[in-house]
Amino acid sequence: MPPVVATMSVSLDGIGAGHNQTEERPFGDIPEGILHRWMFEAPDENRAEMAALIDAGAFVMGRNMFGPIRGEWSGDWNGWWGPEPPYHAPVFVLTHHPRESLTMAGGTTFHFVTEGIDVALERARAAAGDREVHIAGGPTTVNAYLAAGAIDELRLQIAPVALGVGVRLFDGLPPIELEQLDVRPTSLTTHVHYRVRRTPVA
Amino acid sequence: MPPVVATMSVSLDGIGAGHNQTEERPFGDIPEGILHRWMFEAPDENRAEMAALIDAGAFVMGRNMFGPIRGEWSGDWNGWWGPEPPYHAPVFVLTHHPRESLTMAGGTTFHFVTEGIDVALERARAAAGDREVHIAGGPTTVNAYLAAGAIDELRLQIAPVALGVGVRLFDGLPPIELEQLDVRPTSLTTHVHYRVRRTPVA
Repeated sequence: MPPVVATMSVSLDGIGAGHNQTEERPFGDIPEGILHRWMFEAPDENRAEMAALIDAGAFVMGRNMFGPIRGEWSGDWNGWWGPEPPYHAPVFVLTHHPRESLTMAGGTTFHFVTEGIDVALERARAAAGDREVHIAGGPTTVNAYLAAGAIDELRLQIAPVALGVGVRLFDGLPPIELEQLDVRPTSLTTHVHYRVRRTPVA
Repeated sequence: MPPVVATMSVSLDGIGAGHNQTEERPFGDIPEGILHRWMFEAPDENRAEMAALIDAGAFVMGRNMFGPIRGEWSGDWNGWWGPEPPYHAPVFVLTHHPRESLTMAGGTTFHFVTEGIDVALERARAAAGDREVHIAGGPTTVNAYLAAGAIDELRLQIAPVALGVGVRLFDGLPPIELEQLDVRPTSLTTHVHYRVRRTPVA
């Protein structure tokens, strides 16, 4: 079975977003763009990793990664990515509030899943066929899937910044031993690729 | 002036030790040896970095890094390292309780500093001459020096493990932007060397 891969840019202290997200600040109150400079300021150097991030048969993301709206859906919010999101595949958005699926240009369809993380992953696996499923974030969503033991691999970009305060990818989880598959530094980040070991570590 | 360098092995989520240290468990209640496998299981591969860790003119460490004893000094505790510690230089130990300096084999002398982190660093700088000063840990001590803006560089070893709970190197600090000087993965860790940028990032 193809792996379930969590993908995210994080700080050196494992923080993936700030608190207090707004429409103007998708990553909340951390310095703007600080985790993703590699992507915007050095795209040539990081082309392979940018391609790998969206090379999946289906994606799962949390509601905050889809948008800043809370409570019932209203208005026409269709994600942070404009008319043609980069996914080109089904994206399953975790939410407590039902909404019709939303088809975008370029083959991305957002499906809104109210039945929880297991159902979202099951639907993503079915949609992905023989390709990877990516748990695309944010940190709270990746944390939930890690807690459920559902992540096979992590593809992270460790930004050269310590944030000190924010939403932590691994917060409160038991120790997770990893196997280093690949580590590649570029000028503005370090790409790390780990496999999650299933054996207990303590 | 030679740099003040913080050196530590940390988890992928920036944790440098577990809670509840005892004499039997110097790193507290995290899986034993989990952050330092690189040092003990693959010394040949990591020889340069092991040498760099102790290549300083003087060292500063917190009391927990020196020993598990709390309150007044009693007994003959002389550190975790046996009769010949690996430092071969003066080591300034932060403590609230005065104690006579302790000279060990091989040129290591432990000095016990009760006047706080600034005085300890000042004494270490004076002792180090034209060589680096290392803030050798633990995480609470490095955190205090980071908060004081006294760290110029970080030499960390990122172990392939997420701990979720423990003593965090960067906990509660404002964002610290870093410059990647060098990143070198070996089979059991990733060596990272960062310079601390003094410019504000937000």
